Amino acid sequence: MEVKANGPNDESGRIPDGPTKGRIPDGPTNPMVTPLLTDLYQFTMAYAYWKAGKHQERAVFDLYFRKNPFGGEYTVFAGLEECIRFIANFKFTEDEISFIRETLPGSCEDGFCDYLRGLDCSEVELYAVPEGSVVFPKVPLLRIEGPIAVVQLLETPLLNLVNYASLVATNAARHRFVAGKTKMLLEFGLRRAQGPDGGIGASKYCYIGGFDATSNVAAGRFFGIPLRGTHSHAFVSSYMSLDEIVEKSLQSSDGSSSCEDFVSLVQTWLDKIKVIRSGIPNFCAVALALSDLGYKACGIRLDSGDLAYLSCEARKFFCAIEKEFGVPGFGKTSITASNDLNEETLDALNKQGHEVDAFGIGTYLVTCFTQAALGCVFKLVEINNQPRIKLSEDVSKVSIPCKKGCFRLYGKEGYPLVDIMTGENEPSPKVGERILCRHPFNESKRAYVVPQKVEELLKCYWPGISGKAREDLPPLKEIRERCIKQLSKCVLII
Amino acid sequence: MEVKANGPNDESGRIPDGPTKGRIPDGPTNPMVTPLLTDLYQFTMAYAYWKAGKHQERAVFDLYFRKNPFGGEYTVFAGLEECIRFIANFKFTEDEISFIRETLPGSCEDGFCDYLRGLDCSEVELYAVPEGSVVFPKVPLLRIEGPIAVVQLLETPLLNLVNYASLVATNAARHRFVAGKTKMLLEFGLRRAQGPDGGIGASKYCYIGGFDATSNVAAGRFFGIPLRGTHSHAFVSSYMSLDEIVEKSLQSSDGSSSCEDFVSLVQTWLDKIKVIRSGIPNFCAVALALSDLGYKACGIRLDSGDLAYLSCEARKFFCAIEKEFGVPGFGKTSITASNDLNEETLDALNKQGHEVDAFGIGTYLVTCFTQAALGCVFKLVEINNQPRIKLSEDVSKVSIPCKKGCFRLYGKEGYPLVDIMTGENEPSPKVGERILCRHPFNESKRAYVVPQKVEELLKCYWPGISGKAREDLPPLKEIRERCIKQLSKCVLII
Repeated sequence: MEVKANGPNDESGRIPDGPTKGRIPDGPTNPMVTPLLTDLYQFTMAYAYWKAGKHQERAVFDLYFRKNPFGGEYTVFAGLEECIRFIANFKFTEDEISFIRETLPGSCEDGFCDYLRGLDCSEVELYAVPEGSVVFPKVPLLRIEGPIAVVQLLETPLLNLVNYASLVATNAARHRFVAGKTKMLLEFGLRRAQGPDGGIGASKYCYIGGFDATSNVAAGRFFGIPLRGTHSHAFVSSYMSLDEIVEKSLQSSDGSSSCEDFVSLVQTWLDKIKVIRSGIPNFCAVALALSDLGYKACGIRLDSGDLAYLSCEARKFFCAIEKEFGVPGFGKTSITASNDLNEETLDALNKQGHEVDAFGIGTYLVTCFTQAALGCVFKLVEINNQPRIKLSEDVSKVSIPCKKGCFRLYGKEGYPLVDIMTGENEPSPKVGERILCRHPFNESKRAYVVPQKVEELLKCYWPGISGKAREDLPPLKEIRERCIKQLSKCVLII
Repeated sequence: MEVKANGPNDESGRIPDGPTKGRIPDGPTNPMVTPLLTDLYQFTMAYAYWKAGKHQERAVFDLYFRKNPFGGEYTVFAGLEECIRFIANFKFTEDEISFIRETLPGSCEDGFCDYLRGLDCSEVELYAVPEGSVVFPKVPLLRIEGPIAVVQLLETPLLNLVNYASLVATNAARHRFVAGKTKMLLEFGLRRAQGPDGGIGASKYCYIGGFDATSNVAAGRFFGIPLRGTHSHAFVSSYMSLDEIVEKSLQSSDGSSSCEDFVSLVQTWLDKIKVIRSGIPNFCAVALALSDLGYKACGIRLDSGDLAYLSCEARKFFCAIEKEFGVPGFGKTSITASNDLNEETLDALNKQGHEVDAFGIGTYLVTCFTQAALGCVFKLVEINNQPRIKLSEDVSKVSIPCKKGCFRLYGKEGYPLVDIMTGENEPSPKVGERILCRHPFNESKRAYVVPQKVEELLKCYWPGISGKAREDLPPLKEIRERCIKQLSKCVLII
C-alpha cells in the first residue's frame, strides 16, 4: 500500500497555493484520511441501502453543532479545505475493497464490491459556510446532497475533519481575545497534542483563529505558517562552564570586523552591569556584546515563577540598560512568557499588569483542555425531496428538517444581526424588506428585521457533476484574515 | 514529496507481525511523523550545539510524567512501537534539509546541512518500559542516550507519540475497570476525536487499555483490531414505509429453503407479539422471523433515554419472548448502550442496575475529556557522564539527575510492591536482600523491602550500533494482554 502525503506537492518543498477553479484539489494533508477512515456502520448501511436498491436515492444531510464551546457565544468554522480535499479524491483502492469485503458478512455480493469500485463523489454536492467564518449553533456548516449510500460513508470523516478544527480555531480566537490584538501569540503545543495530527492540525487551525506563529516545523512546512521558538533548559544545563566555548570569535553583522574573544566581551559587559549573575543580566551582557557587533538579540523567555512581576522587572532592567549605556531600543527587547498558559492565566496577567510581548501557549490551547470536543452532528434532513426529522425527548437534540437556505442579515453599521434559515423553496430575505425571524425552538424569541445587507452563507465548494460554479479554496492567510475580520465585527454581540 | 503509510506493508492488506530481532521496523503508521515533526527550537539548539562543537557529546534524557492522570493512581504506558518505528527510520530528505536551511538564520553553514544529511539514530540507545505496562510518576518510561544534538531533535516527536497514547490507554483501562470484565467495550470515538490521527490512535490505544473493538475501519485495517458497529438514525428515517422494500425474499441461513415474503413473515410475528409498534417489538418481530430462517439477530442498541431502565425492560421483553415462543437463547439477545457515556455514567448505571451487554463509548473516551493531556516531560539527566538536574521552586518540577536503573520489586504473592530507581553504577536490588526504598522528594516516606522477585523495567528497544540485543516489538494483542494482566495485579493498590 502506498499513500502520498499532500502537503507541498512538488519537490522544491514550496507550499502550493489553494486549488483554483476547475482543478481537482490535492488529497488530504494526512494520507491516513482515506474512505476507510469511517465507522463500520457506514459500510453496513451502505450495503443495506445497496441490497434494498435505495443507494442512489437523493438525500440531504446537514452538518452542524448544537452549542458553542467553552461556554462562549461563538464558534470559528474550520476544516473545510481538508473536507474538500477528501471528497475530491474519494476513491477506494482494491486493497480497501478487499478489506471491506472481509469485514462485511460472508454473503456480501460481488455486485456491492463493484459498486464500491465505481464510487466517487461526482454525484455529491457540498455547500458550506466559508472556512474561517464565525458561526452559530444549529445553522448548517456543511450541507451535503447526493446518493444516500455515498453521503453516509462521508459522515464520519467529515465530522472528524470539522469537529476538532473548529474547536481549536475557536479556542485560539478566545485566547487572542483575552491576550489583545498587539501581543504575539505562539502555538507551542505539539508535544502535548493528541497525536501527531492533533499537533499539525492545532498549528494550522490556531493560525486561522488568530495566532501568529507555531513551533511545529512540519506544520510550518505544510502550511507556510511562520515558525518561532526559544531554547530549552537542557541547552543551558548542557554547558558546565565558559571553558567549553572553544570557538570564541564572532564576526560583526556587516562583516566589516571580527571580535576575537566574544566571551570576554560579554564578561566585560557583565562587569559593567554589576549585579548578581542571574538570567536577565547574563542575557543583557550577551545582548550588549552582540549589539557592539551590530546584532540585535531576539529577547528572553520567562517559563516559571510570577510572570507578571518578572516581566515588569525585566522591562525595568532593559530600560535602565538603554538609559545607562545609550543603546536605543534596548528597553523594548522582546519578552516571551510560557508555562501552562490559558485564557484564565492570560486574564490574570492582564489584571496584574505585565510587560510580556509574546505568549507561548501549548497544552491548554491545543488539547482544548476546558472542553476537549465540539459536538458536531450529521443529520438526514431530506430524502427524495421529502423532509426528515430526528425526534427526541431532549428538544436540543431534535433536528431541523428540510434542505435549507442560510443567510446572515446585516444592520445599518455593517454589523451582523442574525443568521436565518429558510426552506430551500421559500423566498430569500431581501435588503430593505422586513422579515420575521423566529427561534426554531422558542416561540417567544422572534423579531422583525429589516436587513441592510443579506449574505448567503452556504456556498458551493463541491458541485459534483451539477455544472454549478465551484468556490475557490482560498490560501490559509486569507482564511485567517476572514476569521480576524469577522471576529472584530462580532465584538458587539459576544 | 512522497511518504509511505506503513500500516499493512504488503498489497494483501494483511496486518504484519511485529518486527523481529535484527530487522529494521517499518516507519511510523502516520507518514506525517517525520524528523520535521518537532519544535523549531530543537533545530536552533542542534545548530548551536554544532556551532559549539558540542553536538556529539553523549547525553542521557529521561522521558517521564509527574502525576497520574484523571486523579488516579496509575498510568498505562503506550506509544513505544511508534517511537521505535520513528527512530529506526529517522533520516532527513533533501527537501527537509532545504526547508530547515531556509528556516534557520541566513548565515547557517553548509556544514550543518551536511551534518543533518548524515544524521540517523545509529548512535542512539533507547531503553523503555515494555508497552502496555502499568507505570507510575517520575520513573522514566524512556531513557534515551546519544549525541546531544540528535537526542534533542527526538524530544518533541517522542513526547507527542507517548503523551496521548498513554493518556488514552489509561482512560480506556479506567473505563474497563468501571464497566467490569464481562462487558463488551466498543470504541466509537472517531467522529469526535482530535483529528484523523487522534481517532486512529484512540482506536489502537483503547484496545491496548482493554477495549474489545472499534468502529474505526481504518484502525481495524492498520492494526487488526476487531470491528463493530450498529446503524444510525438516518438509516431508519430514510425509509418511509414497508412499500419501499422491493426485494422481499430471503434464503434461509443454510440455503435449504427460501422465504418469498420476509416482510409478511415479520408482520406475522409482530401480530403475535401484539403490543405497540415501538422499537423493541419491531426488532423482536424481525429477529424471530430471521430465527425462522436459521439466522441469529445481533442485538439492539439503546442510544437515548434512561439506559438502565430501558435495558431492563428490553431484557424482560426478550425473556418473555423466549418463554412465550420457545426460542432458546432469545432472552440473552445482546443489548448495546451508547450516548455520551463516560466513567461516571457507567458507574451510575451499575448502581441503578442494568442489563446492558456492550457499551459504545466515544467522545469522553477518545478526547480524554476530564483531562485532555498527560504532562510527559523530557529532561537532560546526564552529559559527558556528569549528572544534570533541573531546579525549580516547585519541588514537583525538580528533575532527578543521573542515568538510572529502574526496577519493580515484587512481594510474596507475586504482587508488585514498589518501583525503585538506582544510579546506573549502584548495585541492583536482589531477591531476598533487604533494601531501603526512599521517596525521592519526601524523606519521611521510606521503607525496607525484601523483594521476592526483581524485574528490570527498562529494556533495550533500540541499541543503535552498541551491539546490545534488541527487544522484540510484540504484536498489539500481546501488548494488550500485558496491560490487562498487569492491571489485574494492581487492583490491590489502586
